Amino acid sequence: MHRTKVTVVEDALDANNTIATANRADFDRAAVKVVNFMSAPGAGKTALLEQVVRELPGVRVGVLEGDVQGSLDADRLAHLHVPVTQLNTDPSFGGECHLDANMVRSALPAVPLGEIDLLVIENVGNLVCPAEFRVGEDARAMVSSVTEGEDKPLKYPLMFRACELVVVNKIDLLPHLDFSLEAFLGNLERVNPGVPHMLLSARTGEGVDSFAGWLTGISARDPAPL
Amino acid sequence: MHRTKVTVVEDALDANNTIATANRADFDRAAVKVVNFMSAPGAGKTALLEQVVRELPGVRVGVLEGDVQGSLDADRLAHLHVPVTQLNTDPSFGGECHLDANMVRSALPAVPLGEIDLLVIENVGNLVCPAEFRVGEDARAMVSSVTEGEDKPLKYPLMFRACELVVVNKIDLLPHLDFSLEAFLGNLERVNPGVPHMLLSARTGEGVDSFAGWLTGISARDPAPL
Repeated sequence: MHRTKVTVVEDALDANNTIATANRADFDRAAVKVVNFMSAPGAGKTALLEQVVRELPGVRVGVLEGDVQGSLDADRLAHLHVPVTQLNTDPSFGGECHLDANMVRSALPAVPLGEIDLLVIENVGNLVCPAEFRVGEDARAMVSSVTEGEDKPLKYPLMFRACELVVVNKIDLLPHLDFSLEAFLGNLERVNPGVPHMLLSARTGEGVDSFAGWLTGISARDPAPL
Repeated sequence: MHRTKVTVVEDALDANNTIATANRADFDRAAVKVVNFMSAPGAGKTALLEQVVRELPGVRVGVLEGDVQGSLDADRLAHLHVPVTQLNTDPSFGGECHLDANMVRSALPAVPLGEIDLLVIENVGNLVCPAEFRVGEDARAMVSSVTEGEDKPLKYPLMFRACELVVVNKIDLLPHLDFSLEAFLGNLERVNPGVPHMLLSARTGEGVDSFAGWLTGISARDPAPL
């Protein structure tokens, strides 16, 4: 039983990677760089995008919004006048808790790849499954809010390992929390040694420029193998 | 393709419900009431349990801790001298993002049902899949932290609908947030009209007694059909 389950899971991930490679070929052909942007619910992905998507000189940004239901985040971004495409994971059942390569592929006809340089895919808020499914991205970034506690890298290690940037958000709340930044960064170092991190507050704008700089760097990067 | 996927999902939920019924029969036989306790990562489930598990006069509490990896939360509860059983969802792969009835069943031999009146099952931190899998519980409660934003009931409706109590945590942070409690409660009412809610802070202890009272009420409840 157990062995069978593992094999089925591996087959599903193989199929996902095949489709991710096809997505990536389409992105490369259009000269669009792609960031897979992940976090727990309410960590501030959308708030951060609201702050930065217009602050990227010379980079035309598009956003693909992944949600179980609704279009609240897409609506929040709409006034920024960047192309936003909504992708819902809830066809009939309770809804998928993550984006996979095939869902992203199904949304691509609605994404104006010819008009953008950088596509940010905002994944479903979840610290487990989104880390397991590549969607054809060039880079993965995740947001961890200081309100979530300093133990999160140890409890959700795959997520903190799967990304190449960890954004530490809501630092304006640090004076009001029992949160040790030193302990958090020590836990992060244990699960992903040397991973870059940024401290910022999407609410006050403090430190947001460094994330804008990181996105600009991704948009200028040479295509890397998937 | 689509229809096939839906059928497979329905079959999996049927199998889950069959095992949940078996779990429930075991709980009823032992006269143990069971609460399935859910939230996003870092919303404060463990902090709240730390506050209440010794404040329940006449109720012997046990905890079943669901985590992808590690035993951090069980370690936090160990000093309270209540029986704590760790259940990890990560056998070999990235780890399951929720508990299901079979995982709980596999842990039951390690839970001292004869020594407790109430078992709190702390689910994996996730607002999507835990709501889809019954585990044999008498009641489901979820925690939503005010730091997660007022839109969460609309973005994760199944979770807010699947429970019979919504605990609104971290209210000590309200003065420092752009969070409208009125808007949150309006959104909650839209997805689950009339569901009871409690405002509290596990950090300061404010309002925690009402959650203790709710747990005591569950432990005294007559067994209901699953």
